[in-house]
Amino acid sequence: MSTRRWSVYLSGEIHTDWRERIAAGIASAGLPVDLSAPITVHEDSDDCGVAIFGAEPDKLWHDRKGAQLNAIRTRTLIEDADLVVVRFGEKYKQWNAAFDAGFAAALGTPYITLHPPEHDHALKEVDGAANAVARTPEQVVQALSYVIHGTMPAVEARAAE
Amino acid sequence: MSTRRWSVYLSGEIHTDWRERIAAGIASAGLPVDLSAPITVHEDSDDCGVAIFGAEPDKLWHDRKGAQLNAIRTRTLIEDADLVVVRFGEKYKQWNAAFDAGFAAALGTPYITLHPPEHDHALKEVDGAANAVARTPEQVVQALSYVIHGTMPAVEARAAE
Amino acid sequence: MSTRRWSVYLSGEIHTDWRERIAAGIASAGLPVDLSAPITVHEDSDDCGVAIFGAEPDKLWHDRKGAQLNAIRTRTLIEDADLVVVRFGEKYKQWNAAFDAGFAAALGTPYITLHPPEHDHALKEVDGAANAVARTPEQVVQALSYVIHGTMPAVEARAAE
Amino acid sequence: MSTRRWSVYLSGEIHTDWRERIAAGIASAGLPVDLSAPITVHEDSDDCGVAIFGAEPDKLWHDRKGAQLNAIRTRTLIEDADLVVVRFGEKYKQWNAAFDAGFAAALGTPYITLHPPEHDHALKEVDGAANAVARTPEQVVQALSYVIHGTMPAVEARAAE
Amino acid sequence: MSTRRWSVYLSGEIHTDWRERIAAGIASAGLPVDLSAPITVHEDSDDCGVAIFGAEPDKLWHDRKGAQLNAIRTRTLIEDADLVVVRFGEKYKQWNAAFDAGFAAALGTPYITLHPPEHDHALKEVDGAANAVARTPEQVVQALSYVIHGTMPAVEARAAE
Amino acid sequence: MSTRRWSVYLSGEIHTDWRERIAAGIASAGLPVDLSAPITVHEDSDDCGVAIFGAEPDKLWHDRKGAQLNAIRTRTLIEDADLVVVRFGEKYKQWNAAFDAGFAAALGTPYITLHPPEHDHALKEVDGAANAVARTPEQVVQALSYVIHGTMPAVEARAAE
Amino acid sequence: MSTRRWSVYLSGEIHTDWRERIAAGIASAGLPVDLSAPITVHEDSDDCGVAIFGAEPDKLWHDRKGAQLNAIRTRTLIEDADLVVVRFGEKYKQWNAAFDAGFAAALGTPYITLHPPEHDHALKEVDGAANAVARTPEQVVQALSYVIHGTMPAVEARAAE
Amino acid sequence: MSTRRWSVYLSGEIHTDWRERIAAGIASAGLPVDLSAPITVHEDSDDCGVAIFGAEPDKLWHDRKGAQLNAIRTRTLIEDADLVVVRFGEKYKQWNAAFDAGFAAALGTPYITLHPPEHDHALKEVDGAANAVARTPEQVVQALSYVIHGTMPAVEARAAE
Repeated sequence: MSTRRWSVYLSGEIHTDWRERIAAGIASAGLPVDLSAPITVHEDSDDCGVAIFGAEPDKLWHDRKGAQLNAIRTRTLIEDADLVVVRFGEKYKQWNAAFDAGFAAALGTPYITLHPPEHDHALKEVDGAANAVARTPEQVVQALSYVIHGTMPAVEARAAE
Repeated sequence: MSTRRWSVYLSGEIHTDWRERIAAGIASAGLPVDLSAPITVHEDSDDCGVAIFGAEPDKLWHDRKGAQLNAIRTRTLIEDADLVVVRFGEKYKQWNAAFDAGFAAALGTPYITLHPPEHDHALKEVDGAANAVARTPEQVVQALSYVIHGTMPAVEARAAE
Repeated sequence: MSTRRWSVYLSGEIHTDWRERIAAGIASAGLPVDLSAPITVHEDSDDCGVAIFGAEPDKLWHDRKGAQLNAIRTRTLIEDADLVVVRFGEKYKQWNAAFDAGFAAALGTPYITLHPPEHDHALKEVDGAANAVARTPEQVVQALSYVIHGTMPAVEARAAE
Repeated sequence: MSTRRWSVYLSGEIHTDWRERIAAGIASAGLPVDLSAPITVHEDSDDCGVAIFGAEPDKLWHDRKGAQLNAIRTRTLIEDADLVVVRFGEKYKQWNAAFDAGFAAALGTPYITLHPPEHDHALKEVDGAANAVARTPEQVVQALSYVIHGTMPAVEARAAE
Repeated sequence: MSTRRWSVYLSGEIHTDWRERIAAGIASAGLPVDLSAPITVHEDSDDCGVAIFGAEPDKLWHDRKGAQLNAIRTRTLIEDADLVVVRFGEKYKQWNAAFDAGFAAALGTPYITLHPPEHDHALKEVDGAANAVARTPEQVVQALSYVIHGTMPAVEARAAE
Repeated sequence: MSTRRWSVYLSGEIHTDWRERIAAGIASAGLPVDLSAPITVHEDSDDCGVAIFGAEPDKLWHDRKGAQLNAIRTRTLIEDADLVVVRFGEKYKQWNAAFDAGFAAALGTPYITLHPPEHDHALKEVDGAANAVARTPEQVVQALSYVIHGTMPAVEARAAE
Repeated sequence: MSTRRWSVYLSGEIHTDWRERIAAGIASAGLPVDLSAPITVHEDSDDCGVAIFGAEPDKLWHDRKGAQLNAIRTRTLIEDADLVVVRFGEKYKQWNAAFDAGFAAALGTPYITLHPPEHDHALKEVDGAANAVARTPEQVVQALSYVIHGTMPAVEARAAE
Repeated sequence: MSTRRWSVYLSGEIHTDWRERIAAGIASAGLPVDLSAPITVHEDSDDCGVAIFGAEPDKLWHDRKGAQLNAIRTRTLIEDADLVVVRFGEKYKQWNAAFDAGFAAALGTPYITLHPPEHDHALKEVDGAANAVARTPEQVVQALSYVIHGTMPAVEARAAE
């Protein structure tokens, strides 16, 4: 009935295809979801600031210029989001993902974390403020299907990892 | 003149047809209202969390996983709403309905309660922060007709129970 | 260029045709403005509560039921508004108009008052938090034309009363 | 047990001794209440702006300078208040009282109105957002005694007017 | 080191001594906690409105006057609180307790629920937004001791019911 | 994928063609951006208040009437904006530009400053709260292209001044 | 009666003794005011960042480090303030003063500007959102005396420049 | 002059003595600072939930109970803080530290990060929203001395690592 569209921001790890899998699942299920994400081309997100506003000899300021430019995008999209998905991958520290989770928590915006069990203990505070902990992108899609349309996962697909 | 649409969230009891009666009344009156509601399939709303994210041997966590997944939906829709209707039925404790009323009150979102007179005393605090207390779904539709278009109920329909 | 529409709420006196004159001026100037207002049929706004939710022998509660139902409309529309116009007429106390002005002020929503000079002293606090004090509905239309499109009034029309 | 003090702002009419009666009642009951109020010397509140910042030939700007200076006080104290009491007297329009009520309502701060029954109809919207309607200053003191300490009024004093 | 005091509001059931047990535990542990609560004399909280502001022949308005007067207290104290404890007893519907939980949730104020296991399923949404579910008042005191001072419960006292 | 449009407010200096150059760059790049700005016809923005609401003999009130009318526009558009660009030109004090930057900062809205290097020291606090400091309108367009679509500037165009 | 203390932040120009004159006036009048201000030792406020966190070869980053450190102080104190006084001197651009005014305006905190008449036109937007425009520090003290205690200036002192 | 005390929350790594060094520096400098921190006894912060509310066979829920209990403390103290210091140590992922930084950023509360240069790139987004990046606890103390009293570091101590 309702024609509401849901805004979902996909925060975190940029080295695997988890965003594509969520996008494919949403398309396949025909969900009314607008996905958004940070710029995921790693070197561009590092270099955007100096490419546009001029080179910096010091790497710290090189990074600062990029980070603050990226923040225009990420802050705006997180504030727009109805739901944030925060992905922690197997490698890298991904502090920006945890930062986004804290930002969402302070805004009162619900979020779902997506990470393998080996991070459970290290992420316990981040998970503790989340509405769900997912292990696979497909679970995120199932959660969206349920949240938006009340669709339960097919029995064979339930809680698969 | 105005093409404004109104967002109305229907919170509470899921065992009778009150949502359908409100939806029918809105359709019949041609009101520009987008209705939303929690997932009202009782067992799905209980089991959604474990169906998607994996079984839990302990009923408490089984329920927790479901409740927090449902909260993504309910919190988002209540925050979207211009008006919340909170229904307390004849049976069950429906603490979540009262929770939603408190949530709406803190947001400054107006709400209408819908319940039989025998709950009046027990609901006096919840009613005290409400903008109206309705006895029938038809009164809710009449209230929406008036609030949106200024339409007064037909004389024969007034204050019917 | 921009296709922005402006939401303007017209609060206050309901006994003269000031809303119609503003609406006519907006239509004539082709301004992208969505006007809204309280229900302006005086007796309906008095009786709506009891007509829908049941009669009250005590006039105080009769009025209360109506006022709180009307508040669903007025509060929602004021919170939606980019600008509020608050009209004080020659007669009546119009405390609800002043209430709406205070409500808008606390939200940080700009408002324009519209009243004859004889109320200037009594309205000095209300005017002191306003962005403008207008004497005629046509000045309100001129102000909207300027605010939205930068259109200055024709010389012969300037500051006419 | 608790040593909490309550901040109560007394808004509105300045021609009778209602503030003194509330202050006396609070002192007599030993309530932990900090009262505040606008400047109640009528001519000073009119002239403060020009007395400090320079004369204005036009009464409108004379009033504006005063009103905006007074607003520093009133806005700060209302934002501080746990409760606002809004008094409408028998004479005068007291639009600033209604403005303060709207301001409090938008902040989510509870308020009690204080006025004679003949204003009930004209104040129905203002009363409709209030937590109580009092007829006498003594009722306001009784309400504070109850709210702060749970003290019920003596039987002989109940609901006296 | 820090001399911070914590404000804790005790919401809900008024028929058992759970508040006294929490107060005793806090006193015994010397915790820097300011407790607050609604007025817990049942008949006074029912009758306060009419006792002060005048009798009402209709029970609904009798209750309304009381509920809105009580709300001045409860709303102020919940907004002040660092933590809310929400108690659901074995009997009664206690919708106001669930209302307070929703109110706290919307404010972003953490809360602990306190109820027996038989309410777990009915309270799953309310518990799902809580920071902890306690079974005994002593667990609430232990939680406060830990939150404020980092004091872990003595081994023999752990998780006792 | 996403059809999100970005709202960008262009604050500050009105004597050069920087707004046109940004608009041309956005059009050329086909960016989904809605630009907004204050009224940039200098004399109209000075005289709008008196032209509509009546002449003032005192220049201070002449200016006040205009400034407060302009503020209806600027405040609404800044609150709408996802991003503010704040331009400081070579001449004039442009305190209103700095005012807008402070307003955006308090709202948590990101902004980019645009000014020549000779203002760097005087603008250090304003730049310190900005997400980027641009030297040319083309850099602002490049920043928008990157923020919205992740498009990096062509190599020959990088960091041009 | 009330023991309320007022927090007043003194923003802007640091080259004349206006802050000392306000402080002396407050001391002389015995007003319950806590004054605060930015660090006013010009070279320290420029160099604090690099002195603590390490030198920067590029003046832009030298300034950035200082500005962001100073912002911890200024942002906190402005958010604390009941009233901000914003001083624009005869020389210098003082964009940070205008920035602070915009910041206060967005927070809804009242402010008084303090500047000579020759800046009136350039500051019209900043003055337009102010509660008062003062010409001398003594007028600021008189305003505080009135706002806090209702004390009118002595006749011989009125509106002196 | 002012007797303002500053609330500073120390977030992050719990395995080195950085908090003690900050506390010692503050004591030595006599700064009016109230420090707060999470519970830093690692095993207690892991086990507090189950020790108080009962054992959990599943480590995930064991951790959840602890994390949510700890969150009562951390959330309250961060919301209280004027400034947050966020420490990332040489080991461990410390996602909760980044979460706290994001939480502070969304609240508009300034924060200083404290970490060795090897984390600069991984922390660029977190540093990009910070007011300063410190390398040693002593720099944090120097920053506090400057922010609170304007005290510059002794020359020999400047920017020491």
